[in-house]
Amino acid sequence: MDTAYKFLPNINSPADLKQLDAGDLPKVCDELRDFIIDALSCNPGHFAASLGVIELTVALHYVFDTPYDRIVWDVGHQAYAHKILTGRRDRFGTNRKFKGLKPFPSPDESEYDTFTCGHASNSISVALGMAVAAAMKHEERQIVAVIGDGAMTGGLAFEGLNNASTIPNNLLIILNDNDIAIDRTVGGLKEYLIRLNTNTGYNKLRYSLWNFAKALGVLDEKHKNKILRFNNSLKSMLSDQQNIFEGLNIRYFGPINGHDVNNLVRVLNELKNHKGPKLLHIHTVKGKGYEFAEQAATVWHAPGLFDKDTGERKVSSEEGQPPLYQDVFGKTLLDLARKNDKIIGITPAMATGCSMNILMREMPHRAFDVGIAEGHAVTFSGGLAKEGLLPFCNIYSSFAQRAYDNIIHDVAIARLNVVLCLDRAGLVGEDGPTHHGAFDIACLRCVPNLTIASPYDEHELRNLMFTAQLPDMGPFVIRYPRGRGNLIDWENEYQQVTVGTGRCLKQGNTLAIITLGPIGQTVKAIIDELPEDERSKAGLYDLRFVKPLDAVMLHEIGNTYKSIMTVEDGIIAGGAGAAVLEFMEDNGYHLPVHRFGLPDRFVEHGPVSKLYETCGLDKASLRAFIETQIK
Amino acid sequence: MDTAYKFLPNINSPADLKQLDAGDLPKVCDELRDFIIDALSCNPGHFAASLGVIELTVALHYVFDTPYDRIVWDVGHQAYAHKILTGRRDRFGTNRKFKGLKPFPSPDESEYDTFTCGHASNSISVALGMAVAAAMKHEERQIVAVIGDGAMTGGLAFEGLNNASTIPNNLLIILNDNDIAIDRTVGGLKEYLIRLNTNTGYNKLRYSLWNFAKALGVLDEKHKNKILRFNNSLKSMLSDQQNIFEGLNIRYFGPINGHDVNNLVRVLNELKNHKGPKLLHIHTVKGKGYEFAEQAATVWHAPGLFDKDTGERKVSSEEGQPPLYQDVFGKTLLDLARKNDKIIGITPAMATGCSMNILMREMPHRAFDVGIAEGHAVTFSGGLAKEGLLPFCNIYSSFAQRAYDNIIHDVAIARLNVVLCLDRAGLVGEDGPTHHGAFDIACLRCVPNLTIASPYDEHELRNLMFTAQLPDMGPFVIRYPRGRGNLIDWENEYQQVTVGTGRCLKQGNTLAIITLGPIGQTVKAIIDELPEDERSKAGLYDLRFVKPLDAVMLHEIGNTYKSIMTVEDGIIAGGAGAAVLEFMEDNGYHLPVHRFGLPDRFVEHGPVSKLYETCGLDKASLRAFIETQIK
Repeated sequence: MDTAYKFLPNINSPADLKQLDAGDLPKVCDELRDFIIDALSCNPGHFAASLGVIELTVALHYVFDTPYDRIVWDVGHQAYAHKILTGRRDRFGTNRKFKGLKPFPSPDESEYDTFTCGHASNSISVALGMAVAAAMKHEERQIVAVIGDGAMTGGLAFEGLNNASTIPNNLLIILNDNDIAIDRTVGGLKEYLIRLNTNTGYNKLRYSLWNFAKALGVLDEKHKNKILRFNNSLKSMLSDQQNIFEGLNIRYFGPINGHDVNNLVRVLNELKNHKGPKLLHIHTVKGKGYEFAEQAATVWHAPGLFDKDTGERKVSSEEGQPPLYQDVFGKTLLDLARKNDKIIGITPAMATGCSMNILMREMPHRAFDVGIAEGHAVTFSGGLAKEGLLPFCNIYSSFAQRAYDNIIHDVAIARLNVVLCLDRAGLVGEDGPTHHGAFDIACLRCVPNLTIASPYDEHELRNLMFTAQLPDMGPFVIRYPRGRGNLIDWENEYQQVTVGTGRCLKQGNTLAIITLGPIGQTVKAIIDELPEDERSKAGLYDLRFVKPLDAVMLHEIGNTYKSIMTVEDGIIAGGAGAAVLEFMEDNGYHLPVHRFGLPDRFVEHGPVSKLYETCGLDKASLRAFIETQIK
Repeated sequence: MDTAYKFLPNINSPADLKQLDAGDLPKVCDELRDFIIDALSCNPGHFAASLGVIELTVALHYVFDTPYDRIVWDVGHQAYAHKILTGRRDRFGTNRKFKGLKPFPSPDESEYDTFTCGHASNSISVALGMAVAAAMKHEERQIVAVIGDGAMTGGLAFEGLNNASTIPNNLLIILNDNDIAIDRTVGGLKEYLIRLNTNTGYNKLRYSLWNFAKALGVLDEKHKNKILRFNNSLKSMLSDQQNIFEGLNIRYFGPINGHDVNNLVRVLNELKNHKGPKLLHIHTVKGKGYEFAEQAATVWHAPGLFDKDTGERKVSSEEGQPPLYQDVFGKTLLDLARKNDKIIGITPAMATGCSMNILMREMPHRAFDVGIAEGHAVTFSGGLAKEGLLPFCNIYSSFAQRAYDNIIHDVAIARLNVVLCLDRAGLVGEDGPTHHGAFDIACLRCVPNLTIASPYDEHELRNLMFTAQLPDMGPFVIRYPRGRGNLIDWENEYQQVTVGTGRCLKQGNTLAIITLGPIGQTVKAIIDELPEDERSKAGLYDLRFVKPLDAVMLHEIGNTYKSIMTVEDGIIAGGAGAAVLEFMEDNGYHLPVHRFGLPDRFVEHGPVSKLYETCGLDKASLRAFIETQIK
């Protein structure tokens, strides 16, 4: 460890941190910041969010008695300082690597990690459960939920808030608001007020001050300005007098500056003694303390490798690279939207991640970011479709689990023309078990009226998107993976696909391999490398539609081959291979159906190629099985 | 039709209603009320909710130009007056009957029914989609969402509200609040204010009045009192000055009396001209106008048959009847909770429906109704379980679709000890396609770490509940149906069940019938009635656990029989039968697996026995198939 660090080398747990004078905490924060910048410059990870909460993290572990007290992080992007302070400094170089530190806090890794935190908005509900449990067990435990302003737009957060005020508890919710800069004048007044406010003796005075400020018209003006300035309802609310939280009977404190660690310590110490549920609103800056990141927080959310001194990101050239699937989606959507004026784009807070920002830039009135609100995204799409528009609703596969009922109740029952694009389907890699898109095929295949497809390559993605926007296609699900495709020349002429048809990529006579999605390209490569006599025995079929199945193709396979192998990047139980097996059974074919896909466990994090090995979906494993069938 | 009705016989569409003088509308309401009371006394249905919104329904169809203007009902219990006014009066006697009028509004039935409305809280998202579509199509259409105070606690409603304020629209949201009576004095002031307020000329004056009232301290006192009086955050908020809706930039009007039809007409006419999203808060009384129902709205929610003059409900005697499954659950939960102090009951607003009210009455601190918030119910349970408590979270199967991600992300990944009891699994009957619990097996079977079971009878339900609360069982799903069991003597001694074991109910040698849940009793009856030589060929097995499967039992079956038949009350694709098929395939057994369950379509409404016929799950159909296998 760098000898320049004075404090960090001696902090192996929060107990060590507590030994320090409060006056030293800013220096601890500086060292943490340097350490994280240094580590992430050579081992990529989530950068800007973690820099933004360094002071909060230090203050929390300094004030609270963790792990006895519980800190519940809402989404774990921000938890690097937390990891470093809780005994994982030495292993931080393994962060996000296969078998290394997990991407997000996980109770499996540390007793300081209180709960699974990959999907946004769950922290309040979790913390409330913990608070109720503490009360039942007569434990005087403090429970703190740390939630971002984005996660606060999720319906689950609201359900938690609504419930938190009706059950006796001493929950502290920290709203980490890193989006809006505070108006300086009003902010200054507020800082002044909060100083009084968090001092328990002055609670009544606070209200007098509010009323006084209100009489002056200061707060009303601000209120009006804020609404005009940010056309975002929730945010405009955050710093009002009778705000949404107080409305829900949750005592509101703030906003305060989230980068003044000593003031945070003071405020948190005082809030510990407040009974009842309460919310502390802090303002932080994403990327705080690293100038390049402060200027461009989105780029620096997860910047990859970079030179820490110059801020130069070591981005490998896009030149000559095949496109990301998400970009094929984004560019194709724009192109289709130009030709079909019924098309609307919907994303729940993933405009950049799914490349819908391409449509947004060109046709801002045709694309909607509805916030972290997957359920609403789908039901809103249902409303649009009912009135004759054609929404393309894009959700990451694992987040679409949140819209399962909306897909059934608000889209499938009435067979509405909603195109549901599931990005990040299959294994996603370093983000790990909370983010793998494993269950979409199995959970959607049973829903009547759905069409479910997955493209073999970029051209097929474009053809499926083209097909899905043709008249009266009904609900149309298209799942495709994270990462790059393989076609430099991806921009083909659209071809309409007949719904419920697969493709024979190669005839054979012994083993029929039926694949779904781009993993079929791996199998194709295996077959191409086989010796001629073996190659002739293997047939390769792109299933393309999990629902409806291509009965003609499957009958032909059932009548021709000795055995079937299915390969998919989704869970095996009830998946695409199971659909093929059910078909063969129902039609009286008795050839074996060997199914390859994700196993019945939550797959860990790491490079997708490595994870495929652990799941037996890598090239070598697949080839080994294929050879057993055709030798 | 009764000649006593003067207006109703001439109202065959809203156009006819519009011909009337406003002064006649109260009489129309009276006739509608009489008509509904009369009809429901001899054809059971949802009673109290529909009586509560008669005036609102008449006013909406009088003021708005339906079906061009869109009324989106949130949950359709309340929509009987709507049906009667929109051309379905003559068929109202067929309401909820097989092939008769549908239980909830459905676009398949009438152009006045704008959207599917069986699950709560979707109306705002749907209406927002419709409003955006109208704007895109340059149609000057009015869109009205009618949502109850209960549905407003759902996260989806919040997501919709949050988004509604950021997209330009003229949405009118009507909050039908039928729970809290208004404090008379303060209510009077508010009525006065709303009269000014909805008159567009007085908007500014309104604020002066508010400030004046506030200076007098009237509103602050009230605010304080309301919070003390109703320990319910959302509701305490509803009539505040800067309330939650205004906080979300949605203009708030109200509360007003929802039973003054002429005032409703006046207010709605004025609100039509207000630009931007707005909410009208009305107070109504469930069961309004029928004294017996006003006194006991819960009982009269769906009272069954009754004598309309005496209010006497024609309840068949419980004496000598086997219990409802929900009551076996409720009573057993209380009994187990007495013995295991870790047990906590959680219900999302279905305490009566799932009989968790039994635990609530006896141990109020051990049971939580968290509001219409299925996702929160599960994640909250996860938090409780993480701290060592043992939550029994009870959700109707079809509503649990809303908690799919919570089950995966907040329970299964960390293998927390949450017992998830899915009531109303399988076909539910008259409530129809939105309420059938069809998908739970298929969508949960693929989730790692879950145990999934379904009891054959009441004794087994008790044994499974007993087993689920033993130490470290992990996430444990128990699905059981709506309605009565068959055991008068249901209160057996608990027996621990070995997880992942089924039961051989009868040995055979030709056809093995593997059933899941109480539908196994139907198969048992069929077998018992077979002639001796046929009976000996049929084996009967209670699968009991869909996950993990009983490998020992299935190997024995694979080795013994010539064919397998599976029977379940869930969708076939990916269901329990598919699990058996996958097992046989993976273990090299080649006997046919004939799977019986729900088909790949949304099953209509009607008596369960009738619906089973349409799905080939009735006794005659099952017997016919069995005979083909053993003759």
